[in-house]
Amino acid sequence: MRTEIASLGEFGLISHLTDHIQVSNPSTIKGIGDDAAVLEYKEKEVLITTDLLLERIHFDLTYVALKLLGYKAAISGFSDIYAMNGQPKQLTVSIGVSKRFSVEDLEEFYMGIEYACERYGVDIVGGDTSSSLTGLTISITCIGEADKDKIVYRNQAKNTDLICVSGDLGSAYMGLQLLEREKAIHQDEKEFTPDFAGKEYLLERQLRPEARKDIIDSLSKNNILPSSMIDISDGLASELLHICKQSNVGCVIYEERIPIDYQTAMMAEQFNMNLTTVALNGGDDYELLFTVPLALHEKISQIEGIHLIGHIVDAEEGTHLVTRDQTQIPLTAQGWNPVSMEEEEGEEEKE
Amino acid sequence: MRTEIASLGEFGLISHLTDHIQVSNPSTIKGIGDDAAVLEYKEKEVLITTDLLLERIHFDLTYVALKLLGYKAAISGFSDIYAMNGQPKQLTVSIGVSKRFSVEDLEEFYMGIEYACERYGVDIVGGDTSSSLTGLTISITCIGEADKDKIVYRNQAKNTDLICVSGDLGSAYMGLQLLEREKAIHQDEKEFTPDFAGKEYLLERQLRPEARKDIIDSLSKNNILPSSMIDISDGLASELLHICKQSNVGCVIYEERIPIDYQTAMMAEQFNMNLTTVALNGGDDYELLFTVPLALHEKISQIEGIHLIGHIVDAEEGTHLVTRDQTQIPLTAQGWNPVSMEEEEGEEEKE
Repeated sequence: MRTEIASLGEFGLISHLTDHIQVSNPSTIKGIGDDAAVLEYKEKEVLITTDLLLERIHFDLTYVALKLLGYKAAISGFSDIYAMNGQPKQLTVSIGVSKRFSVEDLEEFYMGIEYACERYGVDIVGGDTSSSLTGLTISITCIGEADKDKIVYRNQAKNTDLICVSGDLGSAYMGLQLLEREKAIHQDEKEFTPDFAGKEYLLERQLRPEARKDIIDSLSKNNILPSSMIDISDGLASELLHICKQSNVGCVIYEERIPIDYQTAMMAEQFNMNLTTVALNGGDDYELLFTVPLALHEKISQIEGIHLIGHIVDAEEGTHLVTRDQTQIPLTAQGWNPVSMEEEEGEEEKE
Repeated sequence: MRTEIASLGEFGLISHLTDHIQVSNPSTIKGIGDDAAVLEYKEKEVLITTDLLLERIHFDLTYVALKLLGYKAAISGFSDIYAMNGQPKQLTVSIGVSKRFSVEDLEEFYMGIEYACERYGVDIVGGDTSSSLTGLTISITCIGEADKDKIVYRNQAKNTDLICVSGDLGSAYMGLQLLEREKAIHQDEKEFTPDFAGKEYLLERQLRPEARKDIIDSLSKNNILPSSMIDISDGLASELLHICKQSNVGCVIYEERIPIDYQTAMMAEQFNMNLTTVALNGGDDYELLFTVPLALHEKISQIEGIHLIGHIVDAEEGTHLVTRDQTQIPLTAQGWNPVSMEEEEGEEEKE
């Protein structure tokens, strides 16, 4: 079943995709349907973050279902709000779509967004819909709330603070490698059933990540306020360097303490990749990296899913990784999604 | 002078474009540089609107300078906030760029955005930067403030209300036609100097529109609160039908009262186009369409730049235009930027 988008028209399409959407947060006064959404944040600060997701830069529809893509797009917005120690409350979703996509495709995409919003208690309150000459373009803006004195920035890490990460690192990146390999192997087949047995966790981390609301809630329940925090979307090394630069401090982290899942380690070996490099530079983890005062050592150690990987030092001491054989090497950010400046498709020249 | 974006890298590029940006509104607590911007809206409601602008769908860089494109992108966001009877206060700017663009190109684009923000008192507080395979992608989110009891929606127009528009209509559309004609005539020339003498107003309306802050401020100064309002970005007919549908009312507007500039009329004649169709369906006007109670007739008539073009009737009476020869014809929306579902460039097929 394929319904052409043109058969609905712009306003028809928007109605079709959004008419059933309900809002439920008290801070949402007016959602979709006017020139702007209206929100009320009298008691809390407003947090705003925005992400642009472009086909074949951020996602490959060869192996990503549109429903999962919608879910992940929403999660990436939520994750930024949690990284401020806030709670996401509203989302706007803009899409540019070419003729290649059907109404049913967009329904799938919206289902993924809606499912994520439902799970995390977020209202869809607006967006924009446009035609596109070039595949799928997605822009997500997430709005969240936080108490002013509980907001955690990147620039308040202090000497002797402990460096903590949630979950495990590098698994989403290995999931991507696995998908890319299967795509390359089966590139001439119209339908293929790759063998992912025993690697489900890696795929789940790449294709259906979660944002760490649970960690934010645990910290709050235990009265722990991090001194700095960031979400890991571009790799641990890159994010830790952001915290150090903005806080004007240095750091030491220990290779042996970086949390890595068994499947990640197995896959890295299969691919002949350096596991630590994968964990330091792999993207899409959506884990939280944060610092807490040293005095909270015992308290933070008892929270499930949080790993202490090092500590903050003076800026003059630099930013280092201590390897398993006790060598201290400078931490560098490869970055994950650099503006690598792809050649443009098509022939056009700018005049 | 051309600096390649790749020479700066993603983080270098963001720093280069945004490090000098200052914020000045009291509601801006933290701008660019963290996982999310932090805003404080304790006294006012928060308004949020978002626009997606795609190359060759929404703009043609053959004849649009990047600085003007930046300016117009910001204006389109502000206009939506004014249409709620609010004041824009913050903006986020996301861009996807291909290798075709240089650092200097993006500086130009940002200069346009910054100039618009400076003129309208808006802070740039965030965004996202990505590489793109397909030219320039722009996503703008504008945040504004309004008093709760002063917000004007689309759904409160009442029978007998007067229908008002600001400025004049169709001029931006005729500016576009003019640019398209010159592009077609000179398409084989590398540099061309088209003759726009006597048509400057049309070009200005297309290339460098303003948002009607002045009208919102006039209404407020005169204690006039519209019953409904919308900004005219897709054409008068389409926007008026939105108000009628959402307010569950009908309307009568008079052809002879639709405000049209002399240059618009001249160009329409040259192009052999129906002037009323141009005024009803031309896009990009960024004027305000609103309704006020009949009792405000005298007061509203005295405000400069506002034109009374008709009145609201019962839903059963339908939505009509009364032509110059007193014929009543149904109002229909051609729409301006429908999802016309262009063929995609390149060869790819979805699997």
